[in-house]
Amino acid sequence: MPKKIIIDCDPGLDDAIAILLAAGNPDVEIVAVTTVAGNHTLDKVTLNARQVCTLAGLHDVPVAPGADRPLVRDRITAAEIHGESGMDGPAFITPAMEADPRHAVDLIVETVLTHPGEITLVPTAPLTNIALALRREPRIAALVEEVVLMGGSYTRGNVTPAAEFNVHADPEAAAIVFSADWPVTMVGLDLTAQAAATPELLSRIEALDTPVSRFVVDLLHHYNATVGKVHGTAATIHDACAVGRAIDPTLMEAVEAHVEVELRGTATYGMTVTDFRGHIGPPNTSVATELRTERLWDLLIRSLENIATTTRTST
Amino acid sequence: MPKKIIIDCDPGLDDAIAILLAAGNPDVEIVAVTTVAGNHTLDKVTLNARQVCTLAGLHDVPVAPGADRPLVRDRITAAEIHGESGMDGPAFITPAMEADPRHAVDLIVETVLTHPGEITLVPTAPLTNIALALRREPRIAALVEEVVLMGGSYTRGNVTPAAEFNVHADPEAAAIVFSADWPVTMVGLDLTAQAAATPELLSRIEALDTPVSRFVVDLLHHYNATVGKVHGTAATIHDACAVGRAIDPTLMEAVEAHVEVELRGTATYGMTVTDFRGHIGPPNTSVATELRTERLWDLLIRSLENIATTTRTST
Amino acid sequence: MPKKIIIDCDPGLDDAIAILLAAGNPDVEIVAVTTVAGNHTLDKVTLNARQVCTLAGLHDVPVAPGADRPLVRDRITAAEIHGESGMDGPAFITPAMEADPRHAVDLIVETVLTHPGEITLVPTAPLTNIALALRREPRIAALVEEVVLMGGSYTRGNVTPAAEFNVHADPEAAAIVFSADWPVTMVGLDLTAQAAATPELLSRIEALDTPVSRFVVDLLHHYNATVGKVHGTAATIHDACAVGRAIDPTLMEAVEAHVEVELRGTATYGMTVTDFRGHIGPPNTSVATELRTERLWDLLIRSLENIATTTRTST
Amino acid sequence: MPKKIIIDCDPGLDDAIAILLAAGNPDVEIVAVTTVAGNHTLDKVTLNARQVCTLAGLHDVPVAPGADRPLVRDRITAAEIHGESGMDGPAFITPAMEADPRHAVDLIVETVLTHPGEITLVPTAPLTNIALALRREPRIAALVEEVVLMGGSYTRGNVTPAAEFNVHADPEAAAIVFSADWPVTMVGLDLTAQAAATPELLSRIEALDTPVSRFVVDLLHHYNATVGKVHGTAATIHDACAVGRAIDPTLMEAVEAHVEVELRGTATYGMTVTDFRGHIGPPNTSVATELRTERLWDLLIRSLENIATTTRTST
Repeated sequence: MPKKIIIDCDPGLDDAIAILLAAGNPDVEIVAVTTVAGNHTLDKVTLNARQVCTLAGLHDVPVAPGADRPLVRDRITAAEIHGESGMDGPAFITPAMEADPRHAVDLIVETVLTHPGEITLVPTAPLTNIALALRREPRIAALVEEVVLMGGSYTRGNVTPAAEFNVHADPEAAAIVFSADWPVTMVGLDLTAQAAATPELLSRIEALDTPVSRFVVDLLHHYNATVGKVHGTAATIHDACAVGRAIDPTLMEAVEAHVEVELRGTATYGMTVTDFRGHIGPPNTSVATELRTERLWDLLIRSLENIATTTRTST
Repeated sequence: MPKKIIIDCDPGLDDAIAILLAAGNPDVEIVAVTTVAGNHTLDKVTLNARQVCTLAGLHDVPVAPGADRPLVRDRITAAEIHGESGMDGPAFITPAMEADPRHAVDLIVETVLTHPGEITLVPTAPLTNIALALRREPRIAALVEEVVLMGGSYTRGNVTPAAEFNVHADPEAAAIVFSADWPVTMVGLDLTAQAAATPELLSRIEALDTPVSRFVVDLLHHYNATVGKVHGTAATIHDACAVGRAIDPTLMEAVEAHVEVELRGTATYGMTVTDFRGHIGPPNTSVATELRTERLWDLLIRSLENIATTTRTST
Repeated sequence: MPKKIIIDCDPGLDDAIAILLAAGNPDVEIVAVTTVAGNHTLDKVTLNARQVCTLAGLHDVPVAPGADRPLVRDRITAAEIHGESGMDGPAFITPAMEADPRHAVDLIVETVLTHPGEITLVPTAPLTNIALALRREPRIAALVEEVVLMGGSYTRGNVTPAAEFNVHADPEAAAIVFSADWPVTMVGLDLTAQAAATPELLSRIEALDTPVSRFVVDLLHHYNATVGKVHGTAATIHDACAVGRAIDPTLMEAVEAHVEVELRGTATYGMTVTDFRGHIGPPNTSVATELRTERLWDLLIRSLENIATTTRTST
Repeated sequence: MPKKIIIDCDPGLDDAIAILLAAGNPDVEIVAVTTVAGNHTLDKVTLNARQVCTLAGLHDVPVAPGADRPLVRDRITAAEIHGESGMDGPAFITPAMEADPRHAVDLIVETVLTHPGEITLVPTAPLTNIALALRREPRIAALVEEVVLMGGSYTRGNVTPAAEFNVHADPEAAAIVFSADWPVTMVGLDLTAQAAATPELLSRIEALDTPVSRFVVDLLHHYNATVGKVHGTAATIHDACAVGRAIDPTLMEAVEAHVEVELRGTATYGMTVTDFRGHIGPPNTSVATELRTERLWDLLIRSLENIATTTRTST
């Protein structure tokens, strides 16, 4: 039986690939896609999620919008990376479904309570929705199977020298999520740096030559261009790594550590201080360290192939 | 037509008096009582709220429990003041109603959306529920009539030298509430210090000699004893001041100021830094400064009389 | 035998009066005047100190400049109060002495070591010099008679809602001074607010009709004007209160308390958090609370009379 | 003409090697050794410095003790690494010289003023002395040739997950040093991790078979043992890297960056936040990144040989 996952996201170029990776993989079942302000505003990322779900043939999966801003801090976006639409690059896809009328937080709580012990949360965005769900219904901490999140870093940040975007965009929410009594895996920048969108990967995807592969290629071209301009490096497909880990825990090495989100530092606000030696606290997080990159790309190619088949059939 | 209020509280000795003050006053209508962990745990303060509502004859008012802990920080209580039950002193009253099945946050959101522009929120507890409601449904900021809260201080604190209990117990929630775009009145310690439970007040209440007056007298005896022991002063009936201000805005003087909740200080965490001169920001709060104490006591006596009559009739 | 004091100052209008108060009083002997950047830059406040010492006939007292900036934070001044010269108002006085070639910190250390147990430090400025002296020669903590400083507040600040100027201008230095193991008396804003430069006081000073009284009158006119413009209140002669307390400890009531300087708060940086009840630490400071104002003014008038006599004679 | 350097240190096992590296190298001249509380108390590290200078034949170099504690924070030590004496391992050496009567801060200031533009400061300890010297005599910023310090990190810390020992032991002092207007090179953990005391290095040193080589071997055995126990890794000869860089700037690659010491974070206090991309400020530091390790070891071996020759001759 496939593992039930909720993807809480802010598409976002790499979020889009993360959704596609899950959508085409038989070992996971997306039971909900929830959205939150992050890479761009809530309206835009929700529209983008609906486009991607449409492309992936996820017509029956609810896409529910959640928090339109962080808990405490002011809202930031990453429009310089993801473009004005939040998912610049590919052509617009007319969504086949409306946004779900339920609030993301309610949908998360309801889904977890309905499937106790079965839901894996895969947040690939600021953790506002997840934190609100925990405070709204504390029982979910014990009822969720696990949380596999893209966010944080144990060395350096990207949006500041010390902090990674998803955590920096809502540090208080991240602090709530890391300190809750549930199993959390942090798939952070040190891991995702091993998932660069190389020319080889692009070639493999191009070779598929399907509507969904062309979407991904267009997206990666834009992504590589903006990341190159802003960071001077190749783009890395951050969010897909978290989904990959949800699909197959052996995809990456991980080490137990204490992760504490810095809430008071001036230059370190939103840093995930990661303690592998018990200096500041006992382990509360499984920190991903080493990626089997080729296997991730194999998973991605297979998903894109599967989606092409399915959606072709379903038309 | 009476003003519709929601009392968000953590009874709590002075919360109990605040509920009674509102219950017996014809100018306000309590449309909901919501509870939150604060003076004591959620379970206890909810049970206490149900007792007080029973005593006050509020049999049709929903009593809905909300957040069982603060947003980010660890939970603190004020059991040294309010006792093991959270409302030590009076004899136990068997509640006439169950707790409402709705979550406090949902009930607040739903009530505000149903009565746009008509609801006054009167929080007399840590602001966790109110903050969660704002993030869950941002539209309520524009739809609430006003927020009149007991909390904060513009000089010194009580639970620490710098911070007042309700704000210190959930500073991040308070920061959300003070920075939201709605009218907030802060009824803080500088104001409530003018509402000491003097022997004269006790005599007036004792003279009523009704079940509800005897409840209040028992409660104030305990309150004066613990406050005397902990703070070396007479107890002040903090929360009733906020309800008093909701009943009659002319009950106190207020000055516009910028209030900012200190979230990063070591010795000042949870302080409501209050700027009357625009040093750190534009006015966002109406800060109560001077109480017409005698008029508050007249209102309280009248409420206690009214409740006695009503509940006698209703039995 | 008069008490030996070092005045560490940043004249500054009220610093000037503080020096005059000490200079004319037989119960204290000014053994050094040291200066530090504060109300204005080091050069200006040193020149001002030399002017005031000249006016006071203190020709043999060394005036030694010290730190030209705070320990850690960026430099601020109070030019909006004290004017472009740092002592606007009176006419310029040609100094009769050069600045001492020794650094203030060296002079303080040397003087304390030479007179073990006899020196009272009276800082009326940011505490940079005093902190540097403590770290340069830790033994002075045990050898100083006491420290009587003007600075801080136990309710509200002046330069920010939470912080007083002298402490806010160098919070880290203040933290060093308050946490050192020596007797500190804090003469803060709550005390100095009782030393307003009233019309009655001005009349008494005017009636003296001497060069020094005319200097003070000119100074107070400027001081009242700028304070009125900036704070909307009468000027208070802050620094003279600390000298008054050094002259006569019975001039004011004081309460033992723990004072901690907030170094991490955003809106509270440089606040002297004052704990009268042992919440955050044991007593480390004698906090002045109530001033015998008339006696302070009597002391001041007498000093101004004495200086007039002395300097007339000495000419 | 050799480059004049002042080594400001807290020996400390790797400080000892740093002194020896400089003492035996003809391209630098140690004009002073100053000490500061750090790895152990001031008394102990000063005694250790005198031992090392004696061993190195530096009989005419002043060894001047400085600050006995950090500027603001409480004192910490690294006795778990460096042992009870602060330099456990080798046998005790009877010092041939007394401690200099001058305070380290005075000696630093005096030396820099006497040799304008010629002195390179090489701090291998908490930066308390250097910060005090800057505040005591601000002119030294313009008169020092450069500062080459061992401290900080641009990825992870050692004493906490985020902070390196020397900076963590006095973050406020470090903030003063990094923000001063002089050329600073940060030789931090990322660089020194490339200077592990490998078995090969030990063999080369053992092969020298001189008194000084035997001292270093004894020292490294102890160092490797304690670092292995505490950190689970081989010891790295941190401080020698800074001296190596002073001897030969081509010994390592460096990149310009903005370094800001975090003074307010809870889990990040004392972190050197290093910004290579201008996110939080303009470049103020040359950050060492890549070490030519073999060349450092060659320098060290040559120094040890030279000292053996010199001291043998001088006896």
